[in-house]
Amino acid sequence: MRQRKLWGWGYDGEGVEPAEREALTAALKSRFPDHEPQDAQPPRREDLNLPEPRVSLPSVLAGLGSSELVERATHAYGKSYRDLVRSLRGLFGHPPDVVARPRNESDVTALLEWCADAKVAAIPYGGGTSVVGGVEPVVGDSYSGTVSIDLGRLDRVLEIDSVSGLARIQGGTLGPSLEEQLQPHGLTLRHYPQSFELSTLGGWIATRSAGHHAILHTHVDDLVASVRTITPAGVFQTRRLPASGAGPAPERLIIGSEGAFGIVTEAWMRVRERPRFREGAAATFESFDRGVAAARALARSDLYPATCRLLDQTEALLAGAGDGVRSVLLISFESHDHALGPWVDRAVELSSDYGGESSPGRSRGSPAEAWRRAFLRAPHLRDEMIRIGFTVETFETAVVWSGLSQLIESVREGVEAAAPEAMLMVRLTHAYPDGAAPYFTVIAPAPPGAEVERWDEIKAAASDAILARGGTITHHHAVGRDHRAWYDQERPEPYAEALRAAKQALDPSWILNPGVLLDPPDGS
Amino acid sequence: MRQRKLWGWGYDGEGVEPAEREALTAALKSRFPDHEPQDAQPPRREDLNLPEPRVSLPSVLAGLGSSELVERATHAYGKSYRDLVRSLRGLFGHPPDVVARPRNESDVTALLEWCADAKVAAIPYGGGTSVVGGVEPVVGDSYSGTVSIDLGRLDRVLEIDSVSGLARIQGGTLGPSLEEQLQPHGLTLRHYPQSFELSTLGGWIATRSAGHHAILHTHVDDLVASVRTITPAGVFQTRRLPASGAGPAPERLIIGSEGAFGIVTEAWMRVRERPRFREGAAATFESFDRGVAAARALARSDLYPATCRLLDQTEALLAGAGDGVRSVLLISFESHDHALGPWVDRAVELSSDYGGESSPGRSRGSPAEAWRRAFLRAPHLRDEMIRIGFTVETFETAVVWSGLSQLIESVREGVEAAAPEAMLMVRLTHAYPDGAAPYFTVIAPAPPGAEVERWDEIKAAASDAILARGGTITHHHAVGRDHRAWYDQERPEPYAEALRAAKQALDPSWILNPGVLLDPPDGS
Repeated sequence: MRQRKLWGWGYDGEGVEPAEREALTAALKSRFPDHEPQDAQPPRREDLNLPEPRVSLPSVLAGLGSSELVERATHAYGKSYRDLVRSLRGLFGHPPDVVARPRNESDVTALLEWCADAKVAAIPYGGGTSVVGGVEPVVGDSYSGTVSIDLGRLDRVLEIDSVSGLARIQGGTLGPSLEEQLQPHGLTLRHYPQSFELSTLGGWIATRSAGHHAILHTHVDDLVASVRTITPAGVFQTRRLPASGAGPAPERLIIGSEGAFGIVTEAWMRVRERPRFREGAAATFESFDRGVAAARALARSDLYPATCRLLDQTEALLAGAGDGVRSVLLISFESHDHALGPWVDRAVELSSDYGGESSPGRSRGSPAEAWRRAFLRAPHLRDEMIRIGFTVETFETAVVWSGLSQLIESVREGVEAAAPEAMLMVRLTHAYPDGAAPYFTVIAPAPPGAEVERWDEIKAAASDAILARGGTITHHHAVGRDHRAWYDQERPEPYAEALRAAKQALDPSWILNPGVLLDPPDGS
Repeated sequence: MRQRKLWGWGYDGEGVEPAEREALTAALKSRFPDHEPQDAQPPRREDLNLPEPRVSLPSVLAGLGSSELVERATHAYGKSYRDLVRSLRGLFGHPPDVVARPRNESDVTALLEWCADAKVAAIPYGGGTSVVGGVEPVVGDSYSGTVSIDLGRLDRVLEIDSVSGLARIQGGTLGPSLEEQLQPHGLTLRHYPQSFELSTLGGWIATRSAGHHAILHTHVDDLVASVRTITPAGVFQTRRLPASGAGPAPERLIIGSEGAFGIVTEAWMRVRERPRFREGAAATFESFDRGVAAARALARSDLYPATCRLLDQTEALLAGAGDGVRSVLLISFESHDHALGPWVDRAVELSSDYGGESSPGRSRGSPAEAWRRAFLRAPHLRDEMIRIGFTVETFETAVVWSGLSQLIESVREGVEAAAPEAMLMVRLTHAYPDGAAPYFTVIAPAPPGAEVERWDEIKAAASDAILARGGTITHHHAVGRDHRAWYDQERPEPYAEALRAAKQALDPSWILNPGVLLDPPDGS
């Protein structure tokens, strides 16, 4: 049984090789010559210094939980830069008092009942890959304690309806396990967020995650045929349907609810036959803007590529997918049904209309393949860069095409004003007929001891720019605790009132993930 | 200025020709030899006998409204069979006391404020094409009166963002007017419910209408980039975005809200370049089930046809699209971007894998064209059949592929048990990767004087069968007042609680379309 690392991405034994680490250090040294590389060591078990637990499970539930140090430490944070740097420094201000691992829905219900009785905040925990403070048990003083409810034991594909192409899957199932269980049936969910390896179906649904596929079936929202959620007010089970027009869609209140309304225990998911045909191409452009024009045309073409991702020159260079001068548009098509020649031919033709220079092919060594490897490797590299003393973080949004270049420009100005030393890269991760999702990466030397404050300044500047330019505070990273201030600006006030009322109905004791989406009423 | 008919579909002067009427009468006579054709005459203005209005607008709003007889009569019902037969008989039990036509959002706000103060129920009215009792002012005794708020004056395309492919459109804009206003820009919303001619954008959004295009971009839900709604609690304006992951989607609470939360005054809609390429084919099958298998394969093929509609042998015959023996699958592809040869070739190949015999072509005289003409003509024919003394009504659902044939069989048994004399036809109007939307048409001799009760029995039997077999009470006809009993069974109870709480927050006086989706609390 592989063990998750106490600090950083992945499992014990994984990570960058010494040679990779040396090359990375040298590259950073050449880009940031004034910054002295550090070598911060991840905390070990014996270093952990956590506040004493304030509550413990009642004896009838005791077998489900633990207040063991490593359990509490590994459930104290998600995987944002703020999280990684704080745990690297051994700062665990708000670990959960207990980590509970329910075996079934009855356990979930019993845990929530105890939380309501004992005024303990319940933090639903899937894979713990939140980058927005979604699983951090910072809940204010009105709670007697916190319990992190880890759904890891609910990890099965329970049922497959191969005629309809649907699979009933438990909420705690990790990406790789889910695909392994579907594979013998020739099926795939084909939902690949960057966190895929360590994140769960329930987490994807609760956070409206997006896969790396473009344009169609991107957000998990569209893959949900029905969802089953345990709320303090009872089981919220939607009907398994291909479509419906009966009132506002009930599943859409759960999708994106970030654990504030209940715990997603199961969903019927739309799965598909595994692709047998794949075609790809990469086109390079003299400017990012020309690439944007091509991506827009492709998104509006009715061709529905599986990938339509635009990298700026620096992103492309760092991923080994470009020369550092030209932007790169990665295109791919997939199908289980038919060969894709006419599709990719037209896509290449379209991108050449905007000055794209194309090389087809998806073999190893191609830009698309290089990008894919870099994408999967990125979390490990980030861990190393943080240890070397750099701020490395990403943020993302979505905006209509007409507002895209102004938004990127404003974000650039905002980040530059807040951190002139920072390096900022951008890619379009998703393209829609009416807009795109720009995704930014910041790399900057971190001021030792003030890393979080510094990052918060940069992030605030970027978030202000995003909101001012018509973007959303998140395309697929969710709201959590870190995005609340901007989410509150973005959300229509009458909708906030409606959500507050719905929360009161579903979770009358306000025990579920307090502070996420909504604040508990005064005096709760 | 064309005048809407006082009774039936469309505008004065439209309808069936005498020869068409004779042919229809003869056809019905041959199918139902025992039924004596009638010749009920639509009510004339001078025949109208309505209860006296109980309330009138205050003087400051008086210019917006009217209690004139024809206004009240034409806003008393939608266009269901129940509606048509009652108004044909001159039965107007619950007409609105006032019909108001706001000119702008301030008028809407003022009207809602008056309604709240005077405890008058406000019934939002778009094109009045509801077939589920959605606009009928039956609201119970706790209200002092009813006002039908007709949005017909909010009928403009206000703004076009051609870079993003978005149009800002007022809620009261009728289908043809909307398309006319987009046409000079080379754009189209391409949303064609059967009611298109007489229904409005706001109505489509409020009822989650579906266009006649298949598979992708079918429900209006997916075409909404943002929506603006006047609620008693303030303006509910969502952000214009191509996608977002920030909390549960706010627009999804409005889409399908059927006027119970507010009045949709505007939306930014995703529009597309007008198609330049069109290809179609029709395939015939020896059985409906074989056609279902082909439709399923096509829906799962990643080809995304614009049309994928399966008619049973009787539907096909009556539409002039078949021989009365074989089922017919109508397929079409559209694009503004590329020729569609490879798409239609593969679709034809797929349907032949299931025994489909195909004839390509979309020229006039083709099965697809015949079907389209019959589809547009259907409401006029229905009016005539009702006058001749027949019950003619449709109902629809959606269900996963694995449950489809059992559901159709159960509906057939239910209808036959309730009305052995009835003729029942079925088509699949929409096909999804995981299921389809079967659409049923019932034709039966109507018992004079007991038409509504008779139909209600048939409808209840069909609805019970649909629910028992895992369908939804409506794929695109909405809930209204007629579907409430089944909607309440389908809706998860915690969701009902959440909706009730949201309603209380958005419409604290419960004046908006009471009885639709939710009942007013006791004593309100």
